[in-house]
Amino acid sequence: MNERLIFLTNDDGYASRGMEAMIRIARKFGHVIVVAPETPQSGMSHAFTMLSPLFIRKVRDDANVEIYALSGTPVDCVKAAFDHLLSGRKVDLVLSGINHGANSAVALLYSGTMGAAIEGSFYGCPAIGLSLTDHADDADFSAAEIWGERIVRSILEKQAETPLCLNVNIPAGPLETIRGIRICRQAQGLWREHFVCRQDPRGRDYLWLTGEFANGETEAEDTDEWALAHGYVSVQPVHADQTDYRRFDEMRSIFADEPL
Amino acid sequence: MNERLIFLTNDDGYASRGMEAMIRIARKFGHVIVVAPETPQSGMSHAFTMLSPLFIRKVRDDANVEIYALSGTPVDCVKAAFDHLLSGRKVDLVLSGINHGANSAVALLYSGTMGAAIEGSFYGCPAIGLSLTDHADDADFSAAEIWGERIVRSILEKQAETPLCLNVNIPAGPLETIRGIRICRQAQGLWREHFVCRQDPRGRDYLWLTGEFANGETEAEDTDEWALAHGYVSVQPVHADQTDYRRFDEMRSIFADEPL
Repeated sequence: MNERLIFLTNDDGYASRGMEAMIRIARKFGHVIVVAPETPQSGMSHAFTMLSPLFIRKVRDDANVEIYALSGTPVDCVKAAFDHLLSGRKVDLVLSGINHGANSAVALLYSGTMGAAIEGSFYGCPAIGLSLTDHADDADFSAAEIWGERIVRSILEKQAETPLCLNVNIPAGPLETIRGIRICRQAQGLWREHFVCRQDPRGRDYLWLTGEFANGETEAEDTDEWALAHGYVSVQPVHADQTDYRRFDEMRSIFADEPL
Repeated sequence: MNERLIFLTNDDGYASRGMEAMIRIARKFGHVIVVAPETPQSGMSHAFTMLSPLFIRKVRDDANVEIYALSGTPVDCVKAAFDHLLSGRKVDLVLSGINHGANSAVALLYSGTMGAAIEGSFYGCPAIGLSLTDHADDADFSAAEIWGERIVRSILEKQAETPLCLNVNIPAGPLETIRGIRICRQAQGLWREHFVCRQDPRGRDYLWLTGEFANGETEAEDTDEWALAHGYVSVQPVHADQTDYRRFDEMRSIFADEPL
């Protein structure tokens, strides 16, 4: 049997502890190729680099794990891997993460981890973004690693009809506090910012963004936020179509006077 | 009657010709405040700046048009405007663009123009991203300006029940070649890259991304790609929910062995 090829990336950088945990998961399922950012790329969403060159360097080349660092975004890493480095080799699974911090609710849109997972899914293979709800550099990934492995095994062994793209968030805490998996939609809610306003050493005003998420539907039990708040791993099937089909009739009425 | 407040941003930079066209549209409907990137931010998607400060400067302050340039992404511009500069003032409409180049199909996900429009819609006002299917610096925006104005007028005069977020693409060409408006979903298709690989003056290998969109469903007549190819303005209602609800049953079957 041919060994599986598992592609890994993230948005915290190739040397992050979340990547180390993800490599340990992936190694159980096949040959691992990592192309991940040189530097942290949190909040980079689906951004890619159009106007400047990208530098790629090989960091490690063991028998079963190759690691490359790329001077770009998480999505750049996926494109550079599939359209350049792998030159057409079949990839069995894309894994992005494990992210330091949740990517639930609207954070999905801002997330470089999920930007990369969705980009990976465009290449016709299953893709999973894994995030731990703990931002700390020294976060404990041990429970996330065990649940991540279970989810990867399910996806690899029970092939879906067409490749799935999943946004998986794992609650922080010891293994015994995690109650199971919930299939979720993303909660509606807003990330509300405030800006720290200061002057730099040359007297120029600057803004520095900070903020917090406000869940807009704390009662709904089918959301990722609810699952995470109640000790469950949230698993959200994701797609790239952002069309709001429910509003088509309203649109036709608004533009009724225009040639349609 | 209180004058309307129209907020503008884009991803081509505050001084682009597309922004000039957008200001001319917006001036017909109210007081205009622009916060737009200092430098081109194409392909920045929903990225925001977490790890570095943002500098903002006032570029112009006329009676009816204020322009600020921000050293960040399009989404940063929206956040800096709503959570800092406007400090709670009611905004009647967010306009993003006019983009130099189409943002149809999967380009929606990569688009800084649409990242900003969607971010604007999070603040409870209608939001429209406008793009012209012509990348050229000297693109002719005259037809886009006329159609943009019609669409803005419809949205402002025929208030929807909840604010709409629209992805509007306008075909390049003279006004008489545009046949009308189509309410569309985004076409499925892929952006396929190849990389130009060269060496820099110090002998380091670099990659430079280039690519083209391949429409995966050229026959479907309800897509933005079809509309644009047939001379129509495409208008897509957009939302932030990327959950793929059609796959929930399949997910429950894949994870049937897990505690749910």
